[in-house]
Amino acid sequence: MVKFSYLQPGKQAVFKDRFVTKVNECLIPYSEGAKGDIGLIGLPFSKTSISLSQASDAPKTIRANLSSFSTFSGEKEKDYKNISIIDFGDVQTHPTDLEESIERLHVSVREMLENNACQRYIMLGGDHGVSFPSIRAFKEHYGEVGVIQWDAHHDVRNLYDGGRTNGTPFRSLIEGGHLKGGNLVQVGIRDYANAKEYHDYTKEKGISVYTMEDIENTGIIPIIKKELERLSELVDVIYLSVDMDVVDQAFAPGCPAIGPGGITSRELLASISAAASHEKVKAMDIVEIDPSKDFRDLTSRLAAASMLRFMYN
Amino acid sequence: MVKFSYLQPGKQAVFKDRFVTKVNECLIPYSEGAKGDIGLIGLPFSKTSISLSQASDAPKTIRANLSSFSTFSGEKEKDYKNISIIDFGDVQTHPTDLEESIERLHVSVREMLENNACQRYIMLGGDHGVSFPSIRAFKEHYGEVGVIQWDAHHDVRNLYDGGRTNGTPFRSLIEGGHLKGGNLVQVGIRDYANAKEYHDYTKEKGISVYTMEDIENTGIIPIIKKELERLSELVDVIYLSVDMDVVDQAFAPGCPAIGPGGITSRELLASISAAASHEKVKAMDIVEIDPSKDFRDLTSRLAAASMLRFMYN
Amino acid sequence: MVKFSYLQPGKQAVFKDRFVTKVNECLIPYSEGAKGDIGLIGLPFSKTSISLSQASDAPKTIRANLSSFSTFSGEKEKDYKNISIIDFGDVQTHPTDLEESIERLHVSVREMLENNACQRYIMLGGDHGVSFPSIRAFKEHYGEVGVIQWDAHHDVRNLYDGGRTNGTPFRSLIEGGHLKGGNLVQVGIRDYANAKEYHDYTKEKGISVYTMEDIENTGIIPIIKKELERLSELVDVIYLSVDMDVVDQAFAPGCPAIGPGGITSRELLASISAAASHEKVKAMDIVEIDPSKDFRDLTSRLAAASMLRFMYN
Amino acid sequence: MVKFSYLQPGKQAVFKDRFVTKVNECLIPYSEGAKGDIGLIGLPFSKTSISLSQASDAPKTIRANLSSFSTFSGEKEKDYKNISIIDFGDVQTHPTDLEESIERLHVSVREMLENNACQRYIMLGGDHGVSFPSIRAFKEHYGEVGVIQWDAHHDVRNLYDGGRTNGTPFRSLIEGGHLKGGNLVQVGIRDYANAKEYHDYTKEKGISVYTMEDIENTGIIPIIKKELERLSELVDVIYLSVDMDVVDQAFAPGCPAIGPGGITSRELLASISAAASHEKVKAMDIVEIDPSKDFRDLTSRLAAASMLRFMYN
Amino acid sequence: MVKFSYLQPGKQAVFKDRFVTKVNECLIPYSEGAKGDIGLIGLPFSKTSISLSQASDAPKTIRANLSSFSTFSGEKEKDYKNISIIDFGDVQTHPTDLEESIERLHVSVREMLENNACQRYIMLGGDHGVSFPSIRAFKEHYGEVGVIQWDAHHDVRNLYDGGRTNGTPFRSLIEGGHLKGGNLVQVGIRDYANAKEYHDYTKEKGISVYTMEDIENTGIIPIIKKELERLSELVDVIYLSVDMDVVDQAFAPGCPAIGPGGITSRELLASISAAASHEKVKAMDIVEIDPSKDFRDLTSRLAAASMLRFMYN
Amino acid sequence: MVKFSYLQPGKQAVFKDRFVTKVNECLIPYSEGAKGDIGLIGLPFSKTSISLSQASDAPKTIRANLSSFSTFSGEKEKDYKNISIIDFGDVQTHPTDLEESIERLHVSVREMLENNACQRYIMLGGDHGVSFPSIRAFKEHYGEVGVIQWDAHHDVRNLYDGGRTNGTPFRSLIEGGHLKGGNLVQVGIRDYANAKEYHDYTKEKGISVYTMEDIENTGIIPIIKKELERLSELVDVIYLSVDMDVVDQAFAPGCPAIGPGGITSRELLASISAAASHEKVKAMDIVEIDPSKDFRDLTSRLAAASMLRFMYN
Ligand SMILES: [Ca+2]
Ligand SMILES: [Ca+2]
Ligand SMILES: [Ca+2]
Ligand SMILES: [Ca+2]
Ligand SMILES: [Ca+2]
Ligand SMILES: [Ca+2]
Ligand SMILES: [Ca+2]
Ligand SMILES: [Ca+2]
Ligand SMILES: [Ca+2]
Ligand SMILES: [Ca+2]
Ligand SMILES: [Ca+2]
Ligand SMILES: [Ca+2]
Repeated sequence: MVKFSYLQPGKQAVFKDRFVTKVNECLIPYSEGAKGDIGLIGLPFSKTSISLSQASDAPKTIRANLSSFSTFSGEKEKDYKNISIIDFGDVQTHPTDLEESIERLHVSVREMLENNACQRYIMLGGDHGVSFPSIRAFKEHYGEVGVIQWDAHHDVRNLYDGGRTNGTPFRSLIEGGHLKGGNLVQVGIRDYANAKEYHDYTKEKGISVYTMEDIENTGIIPIIKKELERLSELVDVIYLSVDMDVVDQAFAPGCPAIGPGGITSRELLASISAAASHEKVKAMDIVEIDPSKDFRDLTSRLAAASMLRFMYN
Repeated sequence: MVKFSYLQPGKQAVFKDRFVTKVNECLIPYSEGAKGDIGLIGLPFSKTSISLSQASDAPKTIRANLSSFSTFSGEKEKDYKNISIIDFGDVQTHPTDLEESIERLHVSVREMLENNACQRYIMLGGDHGVSFPSIRAFKEHYGEVGVIQWDAHHDVRNLYDGGRTNGTPFRSLIEGGHLKGGNLVQVGIRDYANAKEYHDYTKEKGISVYTMEDIENTGIIPIIKKELERLSELVDVIYLSVDMDVVDQAFAPGCPAIGPGGITSRELLASISAAASHEKVKAMDIVEIDPSKDFRDLTSRLAAASMLRFMYN
Repeated sequence: MVKFSYLQPGKQAVFKDRFVTKVNECLIPYSEGAKGDIGLIGLPFSKTSISLSQASDAPKTIRANLSSFSTFSGEKEKDYKNISIIDFGDVQTHPTDLEESIERLHVSVREMLENNACQRYIMLGGDHGVSFPSIRAFKEHYGEVGVIQWDAHHDVRNLYDGGRTNGTPFRSLIEGGHLKGGNLVQVGIRDYANAKEYHDYTKEKGISVYTMEDIENTGIIPIIKKELERLSELVDVIYLSVDMDVVDQAFAPGCPAIGPGGITSRELLASISAAASHEKVKAMDIVEIDPSKDFRDLTSRLAAASMLRFMYN
Repeated sequence: MVKFSYLQPGKQAVFKDRFVTKVNECLIPYSEGAKGDIGLIGLPFSKTSISLSQASDAPKTIRANLSSFSTFSGEKEKDYKNISIIDFGDVQTHPTDLEESIERLHVSVREMLENNACQRYIMLGGDHGVSFPSIRAFKEHYGEVGVIQWDAHHDVRNLYDGGRTNGTPFRSLIEGGHLKGGNLVQVGIRDYANAKEYHDYTKEKGISVYTMEDIENTGIIPIIKKELERLSELVDVIYLSVDMDVVDQAFAPGCPAIGPGGITSRELLASISAAASHEKVKAMDIVEIDPSKDFRDLTSRLAAASMLRFMYN
Repeated sequence: MVKFSYLQPGKQAVFKDRFVTKVNECLIPYSEGAKGDIGLIGLPFSKTSISLSQASDAPKTIRANLSSFSTFSGEKEKDYKNISIIDFGDVQTHPTDLEESIERLHVSVREMLENNACQRYIMLGGDHGVSFPSIRAFKEHYGEVGVIQWDAHHDVRNLYDGGRTNGTPFRSLIEGGHLKGGNLVQVGIRDYANAKEYHDYTKEKGISVYTMEDIENTGIIPIIKKELERLSELVDVIYLSVDMDVVDQAFAPGCPAIGPGGITSRELLASISAAASHEKVKAMDIVEIDPSKDFRDLTSRLAAASMLRFMYN
Repeated sequence: MVKFSYLQPGKQAVFKDRFVTKVNECLIPYSEGAKGDIGLIGLPFSKTSISLSQASDAPKTIRANLSSFSTFSGEKEKDYKNISIIDFGDVQTHPTDLEESIERLHVSVREMLENNACQRYIMLGGDHGVSFPSIRAFKEHYGEVGVIQWDAHHDVRNLYDGGRTNGTPFRSLIEGGHLKGGNLVQVGIRDYANAKEYHDYTKEKGISVYTMEDIENTGIIPIIKKELERLSELVDVIYLSVDMDVVDQAFAPGCPAIGPGGITSRELLASISAAASHEKVKAMDIVEIDPSKDFRDLTSRLAAASMLRFMYN
């Protein structure tokens, strides 16, 4: 047999600086009995989006963008290269049976959790519809769930006009008994992006809603901190649900429902850092990125940076 | 005859949530005797732009982007679905006779106003050249006009080097006696985007000029409020003329003359809201968006959001 | 009331040469009792595509491209401006219930046919999945159907691996008893684009298959003519089903499943002309164009040109 | 003073292979008294296009693409590096006075010809409207002109609906007495791209028209040769007018009015070679390329290749 | 431990039709002692390109496009799913030492061959510079090499003006004694794409040159067959070197040096099939595809189709 | 000889407003003995980038974008049209000998300085690797150099893993004795963009490092001012090295290594203004812009605006 000098079949040939650990190098495909810090799962599903969306491609693109980041924080003078990320892979969805696909997402998140392999979990959508089966699985595994939702939209549309879409996850959760309205916090809600009936619904259900004006007036960090405090009294686990369209279209041009007047990248990253530092925060999903609509993966790159803020604390 | 179950010939098939009113659903083509809140007219003309521009396509694109917005403001807890928008359509321009085209814009705005159908009007350019015939028509109909112009540029170029272009509207208005220099306010003027002679011209004519440094130092809202106060003493009607290149290129990449160092989307939207709340403000034009140069309609979307700030007060 | 000189509210302002009739000017939204030459219906559905597809946007884009064509043929020295096209609009599909959507397509094509308003019909997909409900409706209305399918693929995949997708329409039709294998002709089948089992299936069911090599050797026109002759003895109506991916990727870059080695634009147009001249040919669908993947609407423009070849004979 | 080792201020730094002459290296800006083989002039004007067009940018882009070609023909085993191209630059047009601009084009082509500096001339449009002033200048300088026009369209629209546009040059020439109908040959005319009235006009004026079907049946070379023979008896000079939209959209995607079913690149290049070999052929224009709509300059590259076929004979 | 129902960590989730084998499923990373039919190696190097090129990304993109093809040929009624492709991976190049990188390519191809694992080999460039080390390795392993080069260019530039670039591989091979001029065949050489001195060089060295005119006159298949016959008498192994810029820019828009007037996709595929059927043909490289310049991977898709023609015979 | 009315051979035809001086009009190609205010040189080299980069095209693109700016500052009421910019052209690099290319950059900057033609200099990269030869030349000419580096990265990678790349310039400078660690200031360093070892290296060498958090807390202007003060005591000349990836990806999308969380355009421009007002600041380079990855030259436009802030003080 001939030894290879410059070939490693099965591995990609990339330049390696011996002192740099790229975040993607910390991804380890799950194998039986594995334990790690962060569990990662892809929920590549967006067929129930109201407008046709390729958000199902985001898990692949976001993972790929992890290679743009290293594990070292100069601010904290700390290298996180030993934080291991167990990658459970992507859920296999069904091409035409959408109910079945939603159930598969639910089952898969639950099976991941049942392995008790990790401390914290990241779910990559997909459209926002995936948060319904995902949060439901967390409820089943951990008990009472609190949710902080970054979003321009309430996502509590009625279910009779189009079934379970990316506009309905939080209504599905509340009406299915998986989430109490009082345990849901919505941050970044924008004018002219919602309907009066759904605004009224959030009030009726006791959902805490913070608009862009609230953020401009109070700052996003104080809002997050205050609500973490409140929720931590009420729930067993806190789940962050990050719909990237909360970010202004200039900073996140790859969302299906982009618009002006949202938060900046810095506001997003800082607020995720603030939230992730709380010990009851054990899960984050990132949804509503359609890589085919993006420019140079700006939005997926921001998603990858958000993952780092969640993981490295 | 067979009844159709899922077909409505002549109407587009779009998903409808019964509780959501999209802004485009409030557009009503003008018909004889109609009355409404907002009059909307397209001025699809950009052949007199110094650099070739497809800003003439903007009225169509901006209208299309209204479907990205609903009529409900959570900040004000108010649904504006009853604000009717009377759409007067687009002016038919002439392919080769540019003087004739400018005159057609003038005549059309005047004819729209003469119907006295609405309280307020929105004119969608087109390049900035359209503000000349448009403001002239307002002068003729309403009397003395005050103008607040959002722009990186003075737009008071000489008329002998290239005739009436998108660089000359305010000079044309002043020299034609349609607008007094003292009644013109320019906000967002940028360094290295103008010439000394035109700077001197603004001084000589008594135009109020606010640069980006003024905005950084004072804030855009106080400037707008102060000038509204001043103008309202002097004029019969106030007209907002929004050249989108006042916005930084990162937030409005679809303008012909983009550049760095401009205002943000939030500054634009907030300042339009501030201006629109004054009762003498009865008109707004939005100009200098070339959809063919844009990315994902970011700039047209911002224009549509600007319309909402003007309409819903 | 003021008369408008250059405004026509509700109509688009476009340049009009008095001697030119654009094809889009011949589109008339269906109204009760209307009669015309060609019936046009949009089947904007592609959620059952195996790979995510925005083919559901094609009906709108193809219609828009009709404005690039006039009604006059110099070859035949004939102006077709009097051929009226009755536009039945687009079927309203359901966002999440895909079986329901397929049934709506079926019902809508059937209801269109039951009006007996036209001589011939054009169905605009959508992905190839729409041919199943569409051809089924023709079978129900006209009796035995013959189909000539332009396609790189057989589209007779099994139904258990993914349900009814864009890879299964002809299997669904055959197994549902709506189409006999012997009445189906497939033209343009390409190497390395199909599986042995499906090749065997076509043989078993008596489907006539013509590969690219057959086309290179025999020419596409003789194949079409021979099969028209054969089919016309067997069936009541002949339906053309044009999957645009039969065309080489250089000429039709906007299909989801593009590839090299297909037919040219000229071969497509000439073969449609040849087929459309047969009196039993009463229907054509055009499918598998995803405008979001196209360049300058090249593929939708080719689709519009194909419509003309079908309509003007 | 310091000598520079690797700097040549005022010249671009490009890799130079000592044995390769790029065609752009043969361009010499005209200076008083210069003589050369080919005269080159840019006619960067497209404001009279019916649809907004940036064809005015083509002269710059086509010239830039000359650097993709060398001067050596292997087929003829001949190096054309000594064929000098005198570049007269681009005509300065007026931003808003379109009549004036057309006159400037006319005056400039005439002034170029009056220098008698070259044997043959290439005019780079611009839209097809530039052929009117250009051919008029040739008529004035050389006497009777024959024209072979490669085009999908007749370009003899009426002048009252929109003035002199890119749809009217040959009507303007004929009605102005600058060109006899019998001396005009149109090659590549396409179905559903013209109107009956204009078809009739070509007949009435004795224009020779060859459609795509004629080309398919006869071949484009025999057509060109036959018409050159005929024209050479009648005229003093033959002018080739190449509207790139005669080429199929797959090969020339950068024309404003693209469509399927046109000639291929090879057919264009071979037919220009055939025409250019005739000694009475002294001029060629290339028009209707909008670089902003192109992909990777495919169309401008084809234009540059066309120039080579004309120049190197 | 929890079993997963829909997750396979480490594997991509893709729709699987049980009867379809995609070509990418046949790729097996090399492991010690493995034997197979086709050896595949990536030579991701293009830093020596004269014009900056990202052809180094092509191995990854071409491999990815194999998933667009199945293993079944309907023309031959044969399924090639048992043809195994041993993937040796990509050579690790050096970021700044280019000589070292070329040597690594050489060493790696040699080491691959020394394993004697396969019957035939495919090398994916990179720019055409990679053919120098690759063919050199074949010479060392197999003895006398014959080469058929599909190319618009001779690639025999002098070495003193820029060192070993993508314009010099065949000169490097001939002058290094790795290839005899008489054993080199060049097909598709284009006018105005080469220099006289290099044309003369091919004559002097006895290289067989076929221009586009030769192809138009004789057909590409007869040329290939005749030269295979001739070469097979002279050499131990025949190596196909496919520079994709031999193909017309409309069919292969992703090459750095695109141009009009080249061969079509069908001509390329048919000629590779013809060549690959000869038993002495044991190697093929595909070079000069820059995926960053391509549209929808048209060119990489054509490369993948070319691989199939080579592998499945 | 015929005089031309509207032609100026050798000059581009552009619209000229007699009162506007565009910055590009102030560029004068260097000729022997010339004196001016600003010296400009292009360092079009990026082959040593770790990831393939077309930053070598930036000098051309940035120069072209100077035509988007005039010479007049309204803030300062000052016209800088008399500030002359002597353009020394672009360094001719070698296609394959990268060490040689770096040396050519070094020699060329040195030769430029030896002419003593200007007061201040601007070097346009290229990737950041060009700062090594450039700063080395300044050291040789002026004595001790202080550097303020705007960058997300330290750029002090080891030299053994890949030689001198765009990741090593400041290590090369320090280890070559051309720059003292204490004289280097790094501003804008970002988390997860560097490695611990390089962070430690900056400490060990006494480099002043300011992170994004420092900027958020202190503001960028105070940091710059403080460090200018400090450096001016220690060095003979201060050199600004602007890696555009210090800017957030939303404002500078055309850098190879973009990411979220960087400074805004306004922060960049203001901080360059602040730095340039110091008299010891005599040089600025701008690096890491790849125009092929940009959108509408946003990043090159920002670079041009940065040049103005440096030149006009
Ligand atoms: Ca949401
Ligand atoms: Ca949302
Ligand atoms: Ca303006
Ligand atoms: Ca402006
Ligand atoms: Ca199909
Ligand atoms: Ca197909
Ligand atoms: Ca024409
Ligand atoms: Ca034409
Ligand atoms: Ca080559
Ligand atoms: Ca080549
Ligand atoms: Ca750097
Ligand atoms: Ca950097």
